[in-house]
Amino acid sequence: MPGNSFGKAFKMTTFGESHGKGMGTVIDGCPSKIALSEEDFVKEMARRRPGRTAFDTPRSETDRVEILSGVFEGLTTGAPIALLIRNHDVESKPYEPLRELFRPGHADYTYFKKYGHFDFRGGGRSSARETAARVAAGVIARKVLGHLEIQIMAFTLELGGIRAATIDPDVINTNPFYCPDVNAVDQMRDVISKAGDEGDSIGGIVEVRVFGCPAGFGEPVFDKLSADLAKAVMSVGAVKGMEIGAGFGAARLRGSQNNDQITPDGFRTNHAGGILGGISNGDDIVLRVAVKPIPSIMKAQETIDRNGRPAMLKLKGRFDISAVPRMVPVLEAMVAMVLADHYLRTRCHDAG
Amino acid sequence: MPGNSFGKAFKMTTFGESHGKGMGTVIDGCPSKIALSEEDFVKEMARRRPGRTAFDTPRSETDRVEILSGVFEGLTTGAPIALLIRNHDVESKPYEPLRELFRPGHADYTYFKKYGHFDFRGGGRSSARETAARVAAGVIARKVLGHLEIQIMAFTLELGGIRAATIDPDVINTNPFYCPDVNAVDQMRDVISKAGDEGDSIGGIVEVRVFGCPAGFGEPVFDKLSADLAKAVMSVGAVKGMEIGAGFGAARLRGSQNNDQITPDGFRTNHAGGILGGISNGDDIVLRVAVKPIPSIMKAQETIDRNGRPAMLKLKGRFDISAVPRMVPVLEAMVAMVLADHYLRTRCHDAG
Amino acid sequence: MPGNSFGKAFKMTTFGESHGKGMGTVIDGCPSKIALSEEDFVKEMARRRPGRTAFDTPRSETDRVEILSGVFEGLTTGAPIALLIRNHDVESKPYEPLRELFRPGHADYTYFKKYGHFDFRGGGRSSARETAARVAAGVIARKVLGHLEIQIMAFTLELGGIRAATIDPDVINTNPFYCPDVNAVDQMRDVISKAGDEGDSIGGIVEVRVFGCPAGFGEPVFDKLSADLAKAVMSVGAVKGMEIGAGFGAARLRGSQNNDQITPDGFRTNHAGGILGGISNGDDIVLRVAVKPIPSIMKAQETIDRNGRPAMLKLKGRFDISAVPRMVPVLEAMVAMVLADHYLRTRCHDAG
Amino acid sequence: MPGNSFGKAFKMTTFGESHGKGMGTVIDGCPSKIALSEEDFVKEMARRRPGRTAFDTPRSETDRVEILSGVFEGLTTGAPIALLIRNHDVESKPYEPLRELFRPGHADYTYFKKYGHFDFRGGGRSSARETAARVAAGVIARKVLGHLEIQIMAFTLELGGIRAATIDPDVINTNPFYCPDVNAVDQMRDVISKAGDEGDSIGGIVEVRVFGCPAGFGEPVFDKLSADLAKAVMSVGAVKGMEIGAGFGAARLRGSQNNDQITPDGFRTNHAGGILGGISNGDDIVLRVAVKPIPSIMKAQETIDRNGRPAMLKLKGRFDISAVPRMVPVLEAMVAMVLADHYLRTRCHDAG
Repeated sequence: MPGNSFGKAFKMTTFGESHGKGMGTVIDGCPSKIALSEEDFVKEMARRRPGRTAFDTPRSETDRVEILSGVFEGLTTGAPIALLIRNHDVESKPYEPLRELFRPGHADYTYFKKYGHFDFRGGGRSSARETAARVAAGVIARKVLGHLEIQIMAFTLELGGIRAATIDPDVINTNPFYCPDVNAVDQMRDVISKAGDEGDSIGGIVEVRVFGCPAGFGEPVFDKLSADLAKAVMSVGAVKGMEIGAGFGAARLRGSQNNDQITPDGFRTNHAGGILGGISNGDDIVLRVAVKPIPSIMKAQETIDRNGRPAMLKLKGRFDISAVPRMVPVLEAMVAMVLADHYLRTRCHDAG
Repeated sequence: MPGNSFGKAFKMTTFGESHGKGMGTVIDGCPSKIALSEEDFVKEMARRRPGRTAFDTPRSETDRVEILSGVFEGLTTGAPIALLIRNHDVESKPYEPLRELFRPGHADYTYFKKYGHFDFRGGGRSSARETAARVAAGVIARKVLGHLEIQIMAFTLELGGIRAATIDPDVINTNPFYCPDVNAVDQMRDVISKAGDEGDSIGGIVEVRVFGCPAGFGEPVFDKLSADLAKAVMSVGAVKGMEIGAGFGAARLRGSQNNDQITPDGFRTNHAGGILGGISNGDDIVLRVAVKPIPSIMKAQETIDRNGRPAMLKLKGRFDISAVPRMVPVLEAMVAMVLADHYLRTRCHDAG
Repeated sequence: MPGNSFGKAFKMTTFGESHGKGMGTVIDGCPSKIALSEEDFVKEMARRRPGRTAFDTPRSETDRVEILSGVFEGLTTGAPIALLIRNHDVESKPYEPLRELFRPGHADYTYFKKYGHFDFRGGGRSSARETAARVAAGVIARKVLGHLEIQIMAFTLELGGIRAATIDPDVINTNPFYCPDVNAVDQMRDVISKAGDEGDSIGGIVEVRVFGCPAGFGEPVFDKLSADLAKAVMSVGAVKGMEIGAGFGAARLRGSQNNDQITPDGFRTNHAGGILGGISNGDDIVLRVAVKPIPSIMKAQETIDRNGRPAMLKLKGRFDISAVPRMVPVLEAMVAMVLADHYLRTRCHDAG
Repeated sequence: MPGNSFGKAFKMTTFGESHGKGMGTVIDGCPSKIALSEEDFVKEMARRRPGRTAFDTPRSETDRVEILSGVFEGLTTGAPIALLIRNHDVESKPYEPLRELFRPGHADYTYFKKYGHFDFRGGGRSSARETAARVAAGVIARKVLGHLEIQIMAFTLELGGIRAATIDPDVINTNPFYCPDVNAVDQMRDVISKAGDEGDSIGGIVEVRVFGCPAGFGEPVFDKLSADLAKAVMSVGAVKGMEIGAGFGAARLRGSQNNDQITPDGFRTNHAGGILGGISNGDDIVLRVAVKPIPSIMKAQETIDRNGRPAMLKLKGRFDISAVPRMVPVLEAMVAMVLADHYLRTRCHDAG
């Protein structure tokens, strides 16, 4: 059954495989008369693009976004906006051995069980390359939110156990890890470098903060803003957990500690992470996302082939050592999608 | 915009307020010829019912489920199954002071901001009583899964900082906290008792395990099983975080540690929590849910009234001291809903 | 799979069977702060109620609508509004013979084929009584549209071959057939009376006109206003065709005849029936609906039993002789649902 | 709000404008392991292609379908299938005068009212060219239905008042009008030729028949097969009415005439058009669709400009004289979409 669409009032449908013709998305529900051009995508696509650092896959993709529809004379028309990002650097031969063997930690096994066969080249549909379409969609989402003065800022809170001690927005984009702590950058470089040298990989935690979100976004009871954010970020490959505000820490607080008392000037604290009863409360939205280490490692691993026979797998080639940095723009895009969707949904209301 | 439905192939729509006429749900998409009677709901409703312990609200509700439609001569017909749970013990007077004041940590403020007014009696639509409808729906979800031999088991992993050290399924239902560790029960009783004595409340962590789920449930890329589980549990009031398998812990593992190597007899480990690429892999599904402390406390708190003027709030009456234990059957129900939905969605497939 | 919901921004989910506990609906997406009480339903429910004339089933139902949720202190809250109409006059014994025999022209055969069994009492879920929930929902839809000054007027254009020659709005509610032509009322009475005397039934055509609908309702390309109206009216039992504006007549016109030329004061003609490119154009919306004769007749008919063996069926009891008059308020309700849905959907737009 | 998707279990989302980069669709929900190649689209695309006759627009499009995703080694993978049909012959200059003037009978006026501006080149999103994506999607729908031995056959029942008197399947594809009556072909040619000579256009009626559809397709009560077929065909531009089985004729029959009596060998008649209670009954599905005359005519017409000032419009260039023939493959595709969707939906059921 269909599972490649996200959003109700502002909806993206994505398609594409890692080593197919390209990745793409159709955005349905974008209001008309919003300025949009292909140049608008360049910056965000570059933030996600592979090959930015020595620790990334060296796959070279320009990731140019072609607008196929929905824009006329520089403005959105209200018709669906189709975006296409052609794949170029698709070297499929290295994946031939994977025709028979399932890579541990990857989706090979489950796709095979579900579909009976699959495009194993670079992970096919399950590849992290799929997030290119999300980032492109996120650019439009931010345009929809444009006049609301909402700011979405994600960063690497933790990488391979190294945690940023300070959050300086000006630092985030000055280093390839999107680390907000100038003092942690070198440690992050060390830990990722060391893991790479050992043929291994590392995970981490990304934090996303939203400033300026008005109160009132979110639809009780199942489409709570928190629930839709959870679905959005958990739908990204390699994400294994998420929390909002105090999150798992709230489990160990008392009510008198966790409650955010209210004053005429706002909330005294923000343990809620900006969401109460599933609806934004006007405070900053804060969420953290746990990212597992990339499963593609250079070490020998036990696995089985398609017939269930045991085998050893030792990957060759070069892969990302961590998914974390490149996930920063992806998670920003997903949060933007959720906010744009709920912004438009909220507009349906006050008819009474 | 509508937000009170969950599921695509197996869908529940819920309604009702804490102090209105009752809570209810309409289940659409239940296959026909499944045996169902009002007695089937008694046990699960009792597990969630308030007033089971000295630490719960003493509100007395029989929580009898009336089947309004969709069942004929003891069997489901394929038509929508409407369930109604009448409210009985609805004493609304104690809530009169809340007509003007927002309770910190509650949804009062955001509902007011969003809707302009709201049913403040007992939290109205945002009340934990809303979960009664979910538990009732979950009973039907389990029936749909019935012949698959799937077992769903939730328990209180942690309560007010006390963590279960062992997981003994036989212990879970022998104590009011659904604690799986016989040695932790008394400590949990102490911590909840102490918090209550001090007019305070506590949070905790619930773990849910699913045994026997076949490989192949979940629809890439947005309706991943993990994403739908995340949405399901994060849609429950008071939940502030969730993780699957190794979860946040995976963020600190290396790929060589986190990957679950594969043998002809199954996976060597289960850091994935039973889900790879958003699709169940046949191993146990494991997820943990962070529950914040109940915001209703007896201590004085700063707040504002509907006109934004500062005020002090000191609640009277008796409330649950922790949402955790009663959330155990609720989370089981939500997981059952997701599985039933994906089970039916999976049935659409292999037409090729 | 679920099929009991209608609408995207303003959604109703209905449930119930003819001889079960009752009929009901859950409305999700109704804006807050709209005045609503149980009295608001009385008039429309009475227009649809059986037993208004000698030609109807004498089943006696008060069709009182109970509001179960979503209204607080007389105003909608934005939470789902559940409505319940209890069945009272449910005499099921006369239907016992139908346990084995399929009634020609009814859904018995297809429900049995699809579901393996069904609630055959009075047609169960496929009964015309199902439309009671639609009429109740339509009352709320009109409230949502309230301040727009939209008027929805349906009437019996044709009954058993007798066609209204004039359309006088003041006449419609003065006769039990909702006939708009004072001179056709007696002929309609004669034709229905004659058919009833012969144990037979008749069909007809209902026309619906909408005055005051603003331009801009409808979402290209699949959720055109015309497409959603078509689905809405074709989802009502016994409806076998629908047309908008010139409809089937347009198939025989030339473009120069059919085009509605445009002047500063509006369109010169209205062959389009108020919809161009699937979007309302501000002119009156006009649609016609073909209603088949009631399949319950007193004449002997060939049929088969559940085992495929031939049988003769001769119904006893009393049924409506025509579905047409009672369909007038039902079709008004469905058109109101579509307009309310598209009104709210349209509100998402102009964000640019 | 989004309106460019159709189907629930088998879903297409379309995009594109007449004079933009191209038309396309994303199919989500196609089962895996179905053989599919770009060659599979050639025949159906050719049936819809403009320029087949002297009465069509001479626009020359090869309408080659590029598969962008979802197919691996010749088989569908279960991932979304994106199809792109590049526009080539896009001469936009002739449309410059339409920047200011609304064409009567077209969607220009309503798009402008709704969106504030629009791609007026060739009608933009509202162009009949949009149906190219539907035909491409329909090819996949038929593949999904492949092993069921369902046959879908559409033909021109009536063109400009000329009605086919006999239905010979072998004749349909031997003439450019898809007329099933060898004796009516010349008359149809005459009537369309005469209208063209006079700078006018004509409408007609298309009939669609489905052979071999199993009983059980359709989901009560809103997603009846009849309701979804109605929405599907009414969503096609220029369609103004639809009827199933006896349709509007049933409004003048008595129940004793209209009921299809049942025998062990099937139904004695097929006034129901293969659908009872919204569910297929195993008999042939029969529906008829009213198509208005093409609004683009060479005659002078009154209209207004974007500022509401009166103007006269006289189109130049060459357009189709009738939409009817090219609609035959489009309606077949839409019916195939509905059947594929309901086929997959039906597979969710019998779990009991």
